[in-house]
Amino acid sequence: MKTIKISIIGFGAVGQGVARSLLSKQEYLKKQGYDIRVVGISDSKGSEINTKGIDLEDALNRKKQKGTVAIDTSDALELIRNVKHDIVVEVTPTNIGNGEPGLGNIRAALHAGRHVVTSNKGPLALRFTELKEAAEDNGLHLRYEATVGGAVPIFNLVHEALAGNSIIGIEGILNGTCNYILTRMEEERMPYELVLKEAQELGIAETDPTYDVEGIDSAIKLVIIANSIFGQNATYGDVDVTGITKITPEALELANKNNYVVKLVCEVRESRLTVAPRLVPKRHPLAVGGTLNVASILTDLAGRITISGKGAGSIETASSILSDILYIARNS
Amino acid sequence: MKTIKISIIGFGAVGQGVARSLLSKQEYLKKQGYDIRVVGISDSKGSEINTKGIDLEDALNRKKQKGTVAIDTSDALELIRNVKHDIVVEVTPTNIGNGEPGLGNIRAALHAGRHVVTSNKGPLALRFTELKEAAEDNGLHLRYEATVGGAVPIFNLVHEALAGNSIIGIEGILNGTCNYILTRMEEERMPYELVLKEAQELGIAETDPTYDVEGIDSAIKLVIIANSIFGQNATYGDVDVTGITKITPEALELANKNNYVVKLVCEVRESRLTVAPRLVPKRHPLAVGGTLNVASILTDLAGRITISGKGAGSIETASSILSDILYIARNS
Repeated sequence: MKTIKISIIGFGAVGQGVARSLLSKQEYLKKQGYDIRVVGISDSKGSEINTKGIDLEDALNRKKQKGTVAIDTSDALELIRNVKHDIVVEVTPTNIGNGEPGLGNIRAALHAGRHVVTSNKGPLALRFTELKEAAEDNGLHLRYEATVGGAVPIFNLVHEALAGNSIIGIEGILNGTCNYILTRMEEERMPYELVLKEAQELGIAETDPTYDVEGIDSAIKLVIIANSIFGQNATYGDVDVTGITKITPEALELANKNNYVVKLVCEVRESRLTVAPRLVPKRHPLAVGGTLNVASILTDLAGRITISGKGAGSIETASSILSDILYIARNS
Repeated sequence: MKTIKISIIGFGAVGQGVARSLLSKQEYLKKQGYDIRVVGISDSKGSEINTKGIDLEDALNRKKQKGTVAIDTSDALELIRNVKHDIVVEVTPTNIGNGEPGLGNIRAALHAGRHVVTSNKGPLALRFTELKEAAEDNGLHLRYEATVGGAVPIFNLVHEALAGNSIIGIEGILNGTCNYILTRMEEERMPYELVLKEAQELGIAETDPTYDVEGIDSAIKLVIIANSIFGQNATYGDVDVTGITKITPEALELANKNNYVVKLVCEVRESRLTVAPRLVPKRHPLAVGGTLNVASILTDLAGRITISGKGAGSIETASSILSDILYIARNS
């Protein structure tokens, strides 16, 4: 039995999803030879630390009742630096302005000699090369499957399952909110504003939907793909972005008549990063509906490999985080 | 630089595809830190052996001109047993009667302490548990990504990228010939016999198409999935199989009117193995057309993850073989 000690930094929907998954998977993981213990959890009000392993059910209940997991006042950085553990699971909210607090947390973790698993897009979109090099220089793993595509394991697929292939390009639909809105507009012939309102009522779109519908979220994910898979040193400014707010039901109907759908497609090729609405043939592997995410990977040997699945959700995101934790458990 | 010595046993389309891929990928693989040398190639007439590494271009040319790679009379078993190397790439043709010569080759390789990568469905469909245990008992890898789905990395996806997930079920379209025939019948409203003839002329269907159109090939692949992913000890007789020969253009047209397509779907759940034509909604992720293969994996955390790509072709199959070789290179 290999014991892996981890911390969970950030205890919102994703952090709680990780705790819940670990709780439900304890026996399963032990059968596979891994005893994964959470020795610290941190949220904005403080931390719980237990070097023998936190009672996760208790922590989840406390968070629910008191709004915080904190039972002492140590902050995230103190937990990361001072408590001995193997992996920092950094799942604080994405901040695309300066990447904080995630950026500082990841830097501290790598500096303290701890592997990092994160769902936080900010630090990776802003400082990919710096963080990747810091990890490599210290012989540490930095893994971020959950940053792009939710449950869809794009990075693991490319780096491991398609190892040996050169990647020529990637096209994807990486924002479930936009995909939902376009799918509903097409199916119901409803205008953008009405469908957006419906999506907001269902919790699929935020009150301020700008980040999703203007293509910003998609562009950030594309930057992480470009840097991770194509070894670029891109930032948000390098992406040519058009959102979905100008699309009319008439345009969708015309597309439909010609056996096309309109999708907000992200594309990366050697030297070009684009997010824009595009016509996709209905039978094309990219033409997935609803809130699904999809990535189509063009390779030299395998040809086009397309993978789709749920792009959001706390348990779905936890799935990607768990596979990263297990990768590190197997390879460290 | 890590040097990995391999043999290629069987030098038909797949074996030559592996050689061609290694040739074109030499520099790429060296950049990744692997010097993969082929020290032996064997076909039905004999072998070429060079412990320093065979000139693959030369071997491919000889095969093309003389119909054989052989320059000495050693057979496959002698090469496997007597030439020191790390990985046996077993790519002789599938024989579903008794699994030979693949079964004997794989047994000999594991007995000689060599890892095995194979595209040969026979030995795995007939003797999965025996071979898996033989590999484990000797601390060796037995990998078989290329046996199911061609270029689509189903096993690597489940075992690595979705690690941490319990797999609830798998549905798939695993035979490109049947998928092509059904797609063309639907698109052109042509009867089965005519489309089959077209597929035979294009080389997509064999002269004797029984193995594909009666669902046998699909069933064998499903057995490998059941044993590998669900830990079953299934054989071909455990699969409930119906082929596509009775499907009429009228049935497809009726389905089409109701927004369905008909697909030869393989399904494995805990206790049931089925291959049968099924109605699939047109917008369902399984509804891929042409010769594509697809697998839809139902998991407890990630939900449904669907992956599609080319199910056949020598270079596409070589892609799966290469990723298995690299997995072993990284993990041995």
